[in-house]
Amino acid sequence: MSDIIIGNVMQSPLKSLDYFQKSYDIRVRQLKEEQAKGTKIVGTFCLFVPDEIIFAAGADRIVLCGGKTDTIARAEQSLPRNICPLIKSSFGAIVDACCNGSLSCPHVQLVDVIVAEATCDGKKKMYELLPGYLPTYVLDLPQKPGSPEAITYFLSELRKFGKYLEDLTGNTIREEELKEQISSSNETRRLLHRLFDLRRQNPPPVTGSEILRVMQKQSFLSPDQFREGIRQLCDEVEHRSPPSGSGPRIMISGCPMSAGNTKISDIVEQKGGVIVVEESCTGTRSFWELVDENKEPWTALAERYLKIPCACMTPNDLRISRVVDLAKRFHVDGVVYYTLSFCHGYNIERLLVQKALKKENVPLLAIESDYGDSDIEQIGVRIDAFLEMVS
Amino acid sequence: MSDIIIGNVMQSPLKSLDYFQKSYDIRVRQLKEEQAKGTKIVGTFCLFVPDEIIFAAGADRIVLCGGKTDTIARAEQSLPRNICPLIKSSFGAIVDACCNGSLSCPHVQLVDVIVAEATCDGKKKMYELLPGYLPTYVLDLPQKPGSPEAITYFLSELRKFGKYLEDLTGNTIREEELKEQISSSNETRRLLHRLFDLRRQNPPPVTGSEILRVMQKQSFLSPDQFREGIRQLCDEVEHRSPPSGSGPRIMISGCPMSAGNTKISDIVEQKGGVIVVEESCTGTRSFWELVDENKEPWTALAERYLKIPCACMTPNDLRISRVVDLAKRFHVDGVVYYTLSFCHGYNIERLLVQKALKKENVPLLAIESDYGDSDIEQIGVRIDAFLEMVS
Repeated sequence: MSDIIIGNVMQSPLKSLDYFQKSYDIRVRQLKEEQAKGTKIVGTFCLFVPDEIIFAAGADRIVLCGGKTDTIARAEQSLPRNICPLIKSSFGAIVDACCNGSLSCPHVQLVDVIVAEATCDGKKKMYELLPGYLPTYVLDLPQKPGSPEAITYFLSELRKFGKYLEDLTGNTIREEELKEQISSSNETRRLLHRLFDLRRQNPPPVTGSEILRVMQKQSFLSPDQFREGIRQLCDEVEHRSPPSGSGPRIMISGCPMSAGNTKISDIVEQKGGVIVVEESCTGTRSFWELVDENKEPWTALAERYLKIPCACMTPNDLRISRVVDLAKRFHVDGVVYYTLSFCHGYNIERLLVQKALKKENVPLLAIESDYGDSDIEQIGVRIDAFLEMVS
Repeated sequence: MSDIIIGNVMQSPLKSLDYFQKSYDIRVRQLKEEQAKGTKIVGTFCLFVPDEIIFAAGADRIVLCGGKTDTIARAEQSLPRNICPLIKSSFGAIVDACCNGSLSCPHVQLVDVIVAEATCDGKKKMYELLPGYLPTYVLDLPQKPGSPEAITYFLSELRKFGKYLEDLTGNTIREEELKEQISSSNETRRLLHRLFDLRRQNPPPVTGSEILRVMQKQSFLSPDQFREGIRQLCDEVEHRSPPSGSGPRIMISGCPMSAGNTKISDIVEQKGGVIVVEESCTGTRSFWELVDENKEPWTALAERYLKIPCACMTPNDLRISRVVDLAKRFHVDGVVYYTLSFCHGYNIERLLVQKALKKENVPLLAIESDYGDSDIEQIGVRIDAFLEMVS
């Protein structure tokens, strides 16, 4: 294979990325086989729904977050236009699959139930429309996550969710199985730390565009499949020859980029930026904290999952300090702050992130965008100027 | 006084509305005197913060929700433009008062602390910016309000809030005092039911524009002041001669209309509609449910306040059935569904409200608007067409 050039960075292609590319069909086949045998498949939208509980109940899970534009028009037949594209894309895919039998998102047809969570206003309200299409269960979240009472409340929600899954699958969630799932998930989290740590090098041996496409498969693949891929990727990246050039080191921080949506990361690297870390649900937010394996497993899960620094939480001090820590740890020259259009949470929270970064002399460029192409040129011009400024 | 004409309805003016008009200066003077004597004044934004607890702690409260456009430009210097005008107006007033000493909202300067609540994304995140201007306390809310665990969690939040107020005021919240406050608030709620019940008449003896301006003072005036005004208003309206004409009976349903914002109600009545009920925070949502006086008061408060059918709750079945009940109870010909621009919660929830109303053959007109004047003509044309349709 010939070298790949992204921006001004030239790299030999990673063979282990083939693994992830090929994994798609394997996974869909696997889910179909499981379903034929009676395994229940849970569709999820968010990191706050603990995988460990789903797997311990003998169910499987697949992410339903939409990153593509082709189902949005369908969603806008009922949803308002001025809400986030991820919500519209996801909803449109479900309506398409359930009403038209369309395969615009083949995931939907594999799903027995949807498990959603009370995060942002848009998602919370969109979920209320889902029971018209698929059975839907919503997990509540406290919004001030720090207190013992908040953990107690979330713990009660997790236990209710466990009971719901037991009824759905006919299985009992044994504590031993839950502990094994926690241990397995932690192993993946440790591998992701190992992978991301390699990006601290200057220049990093792997690009942001490569990493993003891998991370977008995290909640799609089976835990074993994903972990094996990350292990191969770590091994290969550790021995990859350093790239022949480099640009300013960029952190992407903000909203998730679901599969199909790589717009901003691609522009940043095509313009010569080098993405060294993503502070997002498709980045550090998904794996940074481990579950405490020495604690009672349900409590340990409640504590760990409430530490996910999503902008739906208030105050979200954990995120502010995390962004600053990551900026230092990854020797970041500038932060591209990414907000999905009309996402009030991340949009307003930018003010506090920007203030904290300013103290550390790390500049921030704010970009609010949807899944369309019409702003690519304009965003490119702004990113160009930003990269020049932080170079 | 000469008759007033709103749309095609002619009415003799209400003397008791003078009471409310004059009450403004009296109340500001009262608050200043209280503050001079050391009484703590709490600024609030939302019905979910129980007045009863504030008053039982010997503090006073005043609403800070902005309904005016003049502070929005100031807010947009930091907040995104594409969020709800209520949030921008309120934030702008606080920044103006604290940084410029501006009196665009004289309420702000009377306030010792702000007590906010985790409702919608925009408010939740705006509140995180307030500690830069005024001490701020945020009350958490569960988002799935129905379960015993949700009530337990909210109860713990209310007790923490009580403790915070005790520390702030130096007073102890005695159970007897809390019960008295509950009983006093319930009396006001019963009077408001009496007032609203008068609007079931055909034609109703009081207009929506009159009622809205009164309801906007509910969280501004002292409980005694407000209750006395409502009592006078009830007495007068009960004996008011019926209006000489009438138009289609309209329910306004959706977002709150804070003091200064009467745009949609005024247009509806100028175009000949007769507003008979407002399903909003400045309408039924503020008083419909009473607190159970036979229960332990903290629990009774937690239970009652979690029944407020705000779109931040999921699922919000209580609101859907309430809207349908109100439509029947008030013999409504059509619903004008009002969403503040970019309010995802009420905007998306419209779908379920509309579906439920359709079953009852009650048409709905959806209007999304901010505090500006530029869309008045266009909204007028749409309302005109709607009123013609439902006549």
